[in-house]
Amino acid sequence: MYDHLTLISGRAHPKLSAEIAEYLGVTLATVDISDFPDSETHVKLNQNVRGRDVFLIQPTGPSANQNLMELLILVDTCMRASAERITAVIPYFGYARQDRKDKGRVPITAKLVANLLDTAGVDRVLTVDLHAAQIQGFFDLPVDHLYAAPILDNYFKSKQIPVDEMVIMSPDEGSIKRAMQHVENLGGSLAIVDKRRSSATDVRPANVIGGPIEGKCALIFDDMISTAGSIVGAATIARRLGAKKVFVGATHGVFAGPAVARLNEAPIDEIVVTDSLPCPVEGKIDRLKRVSIAPMVGEAIRRIHRNESVSFLFGDASRLD
Amino acid sequence: MYDHLTLISGRAHPKLSAEIAEYLGVTLATVDISDFPDSETHVKLNQNVRGRDVFLIQPTGPSANQNLMELLILVDTCMRASAERITAVIPYFGYARQDRKDKGRVPITAKLVANLLDTAGVDRVLTVDLHAAQIQGFFDLPVDHLYAAPILDNYFKSKQIPVDEMVIMSPDEGSIKRAMQHVENLGGSLAIVDKRRSSATDVRPANVIGGPIEGKCALIFDDMISTAGSIVGAATIARRLGAKKVFVGATHGVFAGPAVARLNEAPIDEIVVTDSLPCPVEGKIDRLKRVSIAPMVGEAIRRIHRNESVSFLFGDASRLD
Amino acid sequence: MYDHLTLISGRAHPKLSAEIAEYLGVTLATVDISDFPDSETHVKLNQNVRGRDVFLIQPTGPSANQNLMELLILVDTCMRASAERITAVIPYFGYARQDRKDKGRVPITAKLVANLLDTAGVDRVLTVDLHAAQIQGFFDLPVDHLYAAPILDNYFKSKQIPVDEMVIMSPDEGSIKRAMQHVENLGGSLAIVDKRRSSATDVRPANVIGGPIEGKCALIFDDMISTAGSIVGAATIARRLGAKKVFVGATHGVFAGPAVARLNEAPIDEIVVTDSLPCPVEGKIDRLKRVSIAPMVGEAIRRIHRNESVSFLFGDASRLD
Amino acid sequence: MYDHLTLISGRAHPKLSAEIAEYLGVTLATVDISDFPDSETHVKLNQNVRGRDVFLIQPTGPSANQNLMELLILVDTCMRASAERITAVIPYFGYARQDRKDKGRVPITAKLVANLLDTAGVDRVLTVDLHAAQIQGFFDLPVDHLYAAPILDNYFKSKQIPVDEMVIMSPDEGSIKRAMQHVENLGGSLAIVDKRRSSATDVRPANVIGGPIEGKCALIFDDMISTAGSIVGAATIARRLGAKKVFVGATHGVFAGPAVARLNEAPIDEIVVTDSLPCPVEGKIDRLKRVSIAPMVGEAIRRIHRNESVSFLFGDASRLD
Amino acid sequence: MYDHLTLISGRAHPKLSAEIAEYLGVTLATVDISDFPDSETHVKLNQNVRGRDVFLIQPTGPSANQNLMELLILVDTCMRASAERITAVIPYFGYARQDRKDKGRVPITAKLVANLLDTAGVDRVLTVDLHAAQIQGFFDLPVDHLYAAPILDNYFKSKQIPVDEMVIMSPDEGSIKRAMQHVENLGGSLAIVDKRRSSATDVRPANVIGGPIEGKCALIFDDMISTAGSIVGAATIARRLGAKKVFVGATHGVFAGPAVARLNEAPIDEIVVTDSLPCPVEGKIDRLKRVSIAPMVGEAIRRIHRNESVSFLFGDASRLD
Amino acid sequence: MYDHLTLISGRAHPKLSAEIAEYLGVTLATVDISDFPDSETHVKLNQNVRGRDVFLIQPTGPSANQNLMELLILVDTCMRASAERITAVIPYFGYARQDRKDKGRVPITAKLVANLLDTAGVDRVLTVDLHAAQIQGFFDLPVDHLYAAPILDNYFKSKQIPVDEMVIMSPDEGSIKRAMQHVENLGGSLAIVDKRRSSATDVRPANVIGGPIEGKCALIFDDMISTAGSIVGAATIARRLGAKKVFVGATHGVFAGPAVARLNEAPIDEIVVTDSLPCPVEGKIDRLKRVSIAPMVGEAIRRIHRNESVSFLFGDASRLD
Repeated sequence: MYDHLTLISGRAHPKLSAEIAEYLGVTLATVDISDFPDSETHVKLNQNVRGRDVFLIQPTGPSANQNLMELLILVDTCMRASAERITAVIPYFGYARQDRKDKGRVPITAKLVANLLDTAGVDRVLTVDLHAAQIQGFFDLPVDHLYAAPILDNYFKSKQIPVDEMVIMSPDEGSIKRAMQHVENLGGSLAIVDKRRSSATDVRPANVIGGPIEGKCALIFDDMISTAGSIVGAATIARRLGAKKVFVGATHGVFAGPAVARLNEAPIDEIVVTDSLPCPVEGKIDRLKRVSIAPMVGEAIRRIHRNESVSFLFGDASRLD
Repeated sequence: MYDHLTLISGRAHPKLSAEIAEYLGVTLATVDISDFPDSETHVKLNQNVRGRDVFLIQPTGPSANQNLMELLILVDTCMRASAERITAVIPYFGYARQDRKDKGRVPITAKLVANLLDTAGVDRVLTVDLHAAQIQGFFDLPVDHLYAAPILDNYFKSKQIPVDEMVIMSPDEGSIKRAMQHVENLGGSLAIVDKRRSSATDVRPANVIGGPIEGKCALIFDDMISTAGSIVGAATIARRLGAKKVFVGATHGVFAGPAVARLNEAPIDEIVVTDSLPCPVEGKIDRLKRVSIAPMVGEAIRRIHRNESVSFLFGDASRLD
Repeated sequence: MYDHLTLISGRAHPKLSAEIAEYLGVTLATVDISDFPDSETHVKLNQNVRGRDVFLIQPTGPSANQNLMELLILVDTCMRASAERITAVIPYFGYARQDRKDKGRVPITAKLVANLLDTAGVDRVLTVDLHAAQIQGFFDLPVDHLYAAPILDNYFKSKQIPVDEMVIMSPDEGSIKRAMQHVENLGGSLAIVDKRRSSATDVRPANVIGGPIEGKCALIFDDMISTAGSIVGAATIARRLGAKKVFVGATHGVFAGPAVARLNEAPIDEIVVTDSLPCPVEGKIDRLKRVSIAPMVGEAIRRIHRNESVSFLFGDASRLD
Repeated sequence: MYDHLTLISGRAHPKLSAEIAEYLGVTLATVDISDFPDSETHVKLNQNVRGRDVFLIQPTGPSANQNLMELLILVDTCMRASAERITAVIPYFGYARQDRKDKGRVPITAKLVANLLDTAGVDRVLTVDLHAAQIQGFFDLPVDHLYAAPILDNYFKSKQIPVDEMVIMSPDEGSIKRAMQHVENLGGSLAIVDKRRSSATDVRPANVIGGPIEGKCALIFDDMISTAGSIVGAATIARRLGAKKVFVGATHGVFAGPAVARLNEAPIDEIVVTDSLPCPVEGKIDRLKRVSIAPMVGEAIRRIHRNESVSFLFGDASRLD
Repeated sequence: MYDHLTLISGRAHPKLSAEIAEYLGVTLATVDISDFPDSETHVKLNQNVRGRDVFLIQPTGPSANQNLMELLILVDTCMRASAERITAVIPYFGYARQDRKDKGRVPITAKLVANLLDTAGVDRVLTVDLHAAQIQGFFDLPVDHLYAAPILDNYFKSKQIPVDEMVIMSPDEGSIKRAMQHVENLGGSLAIVDKRRSSATDVRPANVIGGPIEGKCALIFDDMISTAGSIVGAATIARRLGAKKVFVGATHGVFAGPAVARLNEAPIDEIVVTDSLPCPVEGKIDRLKRVSIAPMVGEAIRRIHRNESVSFLFGDASRLD
Repeated sequence: MYDHLTLISGRAHPKLSAEIAEYLGVTLATVDISDFPDSETHVKLNQNVRGRDVFLIQPTGPSANQNLMELLILVDTCMRASAERITAVIPYFGYARQDRKDKGRVPITAKLVANLLDTAGVDRVLTVDLHAAQIQGFFDLPVDHLYAAPILDNYFKSKQIPVDEMVIMSPDEGSIKRAMQHVENLGGSLAIVDKRRSSATDVRPANVIGGPIEGKCALIFDDMISTAGSIVGAATIARRLGAKKVFVGATHGVFAGPAVARLNEAPIDEIVVTDSLPCPVEGKIDRLKRVSIAPMVGEAIRRIHRNESVSFLFGDASRLD
């Protein structure tokens, strides 16, 4: 059935890799990956990949440099071992926020990363919810870009919140498009936190555009929760403005630095993220719910391997191919 | 003073090129560019560019394909004539809105264009107000990205509108960041037209987030005016909601298709654009004001040629280098 | 039979594409191509091309820049939609006459075009009667170069002109090799118009080398008819020198600028071209005969797709592979 | 005066290199080049080339593979020794006749050679009378293409042959353009040997187009004399047709295989070639005159090094830049 | 069985190619390769290679430049004739000793050669006993590196020399690793000739480290015998130190320059090399035994073509893949 | 004096950078480098590098992946900020031991690293004592390779050990060449530890080749001390064999994993390393002496910047250029 398919997991997120393999009904390839005492990463494949369609699964979340280099070394290994095609499956694409020069003399690290992957020998990329869709264009090879929004929305739909009691909040201006898409899918009204103006003065009710929030269930969406500053800020505002429930939804749960402390103290009823990244804080974040992208990623791999349309997977021919 | 500087103008916008040359106090190089009867573009440089620092000035607005190919042919000409360095000065970067795969089986033409320029032999790019800042990352060569917002803001400041009478409007969710930057610079409050919801039903007052607009001078900003649909929609809403004045500001005046008719019929008091593109409708758009980017672009060329910081030009070290 | 074959037509010559598809017994892929009001070209494929052997049919005749850019955008679309292999089928390769620096400070646009196609993602090229065979070498990928001469010769053979009444004329020194090949195939004698000397003085009988022409059927061959200057000049000379019939044969009928007027006024009995380009002047050129290259191109596509020898197609193993 | 100029000679033609150095008033760099007993070529530069403008002089005539590989190794040496710019000065560009696929399953070796030079690290090329001008386009770097025709013509002008006694002959159809250029420069009439038809039957007077030749001084021009078959054939025909003198002029004197015997037996009054190649047959070819390209190449190097126009060198701004 | 396999032999070693073809049970492709009188190499394939898995067999031993260029031209031919995959089978990789800059201003020709092969269009490389294993890394494509040591060892095992009578000698410090591997496989003790110190003074017994040699059978191993200086020096020392038998084993028998004379005069009982190179001295070297690598190379080709593990061929999964 | 020179230090070894800057009499550029809470590395240059000759100083020792990625991001930053030339100064080149496929299905990470640096935009490399000299060939750009041996030798010379009391030991077969070079420079005899045979059985005196060691000062040299296994093994053997003093010298002091414990327990009188890496164990290793490469690297930078020969720096024209 998957005649020449080989699935290889880096060390970044073996649990997700295992679930994807289980979805596909295949066994993960055995590969030795270790860090030598001098900190260098060593890789050894334990099975033949000549002429095979290899999928390397490795989100490049924390530790970003470590995970990225490990992925590049895996790619080099497979290229030199004569793999037919190498697809980098990157459920979380690190460095995505460094995607432009917003000020002088800074790098565009997301493009650098794309170039490094290309140089190492990647033939195609499969990723989920890029911070900016333009990052697809950083590659000159086919990129399949999956969207986790439907998975999050399905979860929230199961809560059966009446539409007129729901307000979708964007924690800043950069996430408005995302919030609008959730409004389209879930219904409800839209509210935007105007972070810029908040920084000038205290956090006052006036710094929310749209709404209203009073008496509503507030659903705050972002693509990722990193240090959780924006999200917690938005949740706090929502509560002050009288939201009766505050939910948070995000594709990528990075939970970096002060995130755990902030979230646990925040007036949030539930935090929902996918398993695009391993949970570095298992059990430490209260009210955390994780929904799985393994079936979606697995199905995309199946379709890519068989040259079938990936868009039909979502019943949404306009989104993907 | 500009020992090895050579300025060459394509046919897209000779007026702007002439003004830039005047700012710099240099003479434009003489070059023959013509279309043969079979539609092919022919180029012949009439002066030596060996070892010279060449700046090719060509916005790739309408006709986009024609102007882009002409630019590529000019680059090839200069490369083969042994220019030391070739900077493509592209005040308006065409195809910029095709910067991602928002649905399946579409191109990322903005990346294609970047690759074509690279292949032809461009060494660096100087451009103004890219539709998405990420397009800088489509290049693996230095890009100087200039911002025309201060030029527009200076013009509006000269109108001395009291801050509490001013509302900055974003015609859709894609321009909110831009609108916020104008709020920071000019003051005033913020309002956003929620285009998505407008399409579902009639254009009602409810589809504006933020404000208020009643009795205010509305300043609607966008990066470009193409068919003018969004802009005119926003202006109409502003007027309905009781704006006493409606101004429109945009960097790039494309004015395509129905734009002239729409703008002339719209309840707009003044439309302000830069001269990044030639005015294809000279005299046909009422209340049109054009402000010049020639000094800004000219000064950037001067600084690039002399290896001086471009950011200091704006008194804003955080923006550029 | 053509398991993974996908045929896509650009907008340059849909009639030829349809005939090639008919020859192959396949359906053209559905694709939306349009120019937006701002002149930018938009493409959307409406079917899955993952893992498929795609042939993009697009001659790059007038409007050369438009057709070329459209082809490049189609290539980018197919590459990003994961086509297995992309063959650019370019029955007329525009810019072919700009294939060298015949004077200082001019481009080599034919090479630029080859590089642009390579950069966009073309894997191989199929073309017909390049202006100079060396253009094959502008590519570092396989080029199948078809010759239309046999198709033209077959047509003239059907006229059953006695060999001793036939003179093959080259309209200038650049087409002598071509004329000689027709002499080999059709018989007859050879005559060359010495254009250089004609320009210095009036068109006198003395500027023809070879012949004789008196009382003969003159067959004037060139690779293309663009503005028709050379062809009409040669025809006029032939008639003055006493040719009893004057026929003109060319692979590519560009018919640019003054071509129609010139040809209609010229003493030519019949003009024969292939359908490598659409006829921009349908019905406007008298005595015009078009012969089809669709079966030849279609058969070449069939053989390329099936990895069969293309040279055997012509019973001429020495020409092609 | 030539602050950073370094001139290096391969072993192919040290005499020409010495003359070019003398023209420029510089000393050739010392470099050890030798073939080890196992046939491998070893190179060692004996002076610092960091930051220098290096010109490597090496025609790639016989032994073609040996001379080409030596040139490539020299380029690698200079690149790794941090030369600022490397210009390959190739007075005779070998493999130039393999510039297209004239039949199936053959290489385009001239393009391969261009790619090899590019890969090795050449920044620019200076060459003389390429077999086909399109070879310039095989490179994506600046090529300066010099013409030796004026040097040959000056020599023949010194013979003061009356124009009405002169006939310029092309030995085959491939050299007609070249012959016509000599006609333009020297005057005289034009005659073309129709080699194709000659091969079918004996060499008869009928296979010359143009003329007349009777009683004239015939000047036969070609770009190179390799095995001398065409040239000697043309000379024999000229004599049979009553030419009173027969001169032969060519840029490149390869003199391969049977050339010496053929030329010595042929009815030729004088053979004129340049010194683009070493004379492998010194003293063995009777009536051989060699004219030097050293001043022309030397002056071109001087101008390239100083970023001066090369075309002005010839008083012919239309030819070069 | 080998549906799309095509085996092509260059002119360097047709005998080995024939044996490999025989092992595989396939017929070598017919190809015309010749040197024209002007020394240029011409290639013409006589059969279709479209879509085929082509293996080009060509050791790049003497004449190194000639054989390398011929290989590059063959690659270009196959690429332009649309081969699916091109594997360069290089049983002896010439220029391998120029693999680093051991002094200033020298090339790294082995890297240059790798780049030239890549540029010409090679997809993968199959080679035997590279002088330095790091040369694999000079390529960015898959390299299968075979080891001939087991073939040599098997031959020596057949001599049934008692382990305690055997001493394995390394002729210099560069071959110690190789010697140690033979000790592991064959048993015996180890001795190293300290060449550096020998050069300063006479060849004295003191310049051997390890041993003892007295009364033993000395087996001297190196990767190649070029001018045979080291080997003969080691053999002479072994004999002086009382070795009762002296055998020499090497993968590559280059036998350059003074090698034949030296070997014939040396106190060596038998010289064993593989047939990775043709024997340029057939019958001229006394006591020469050649063992064949054809089965090993043939089997590797079979496995590469079928995407099977090459390492299992040797029962040594740790060596190859 | 250093008109356009800019020196930038990564975070790997600021002390060495400072010493190099001091040697050169220049100030290090100010740059912000930090790791964000999500582990991603952020860089911001605080001064203009347009048109400047930038040297980035960053050894890629532990943490190898972190330091390498930081270097790559710095390169991207400088490239996009329009540096004229970027030299990566890598005093310790990490991953150098992964320089070949010694077994199947492993990467060649050293080549991958070279490719990543090239892709990021490095123009040249300056490094010290590469594990294998062939790694220079992994780059297609100029590499200046410095040798620290003279610095170590000078230190040992200062101890004035009589030559006949000195034995230079190689801890394994891979370091014999290095040991021999020290013998050439310092005098003394040579001894080699045969590690392979030691692993089979206990560490017995028999596994040393050469010597004698009894009563001598043993100097054990290696290119690096990583986990210190080989070095400590050799030292132990030396002591058992009666060495009266045991010194250890190495260029790179990695001191990974068990190194500190092993070294402190080993019978070593003094350990000498350079400061190519920061000392991660400051004060924890007894008898550790560090000698500085800062003057050597600084002088090399000075000479590279000024296009002066680097080899003359060492009075050794045969080593470097």
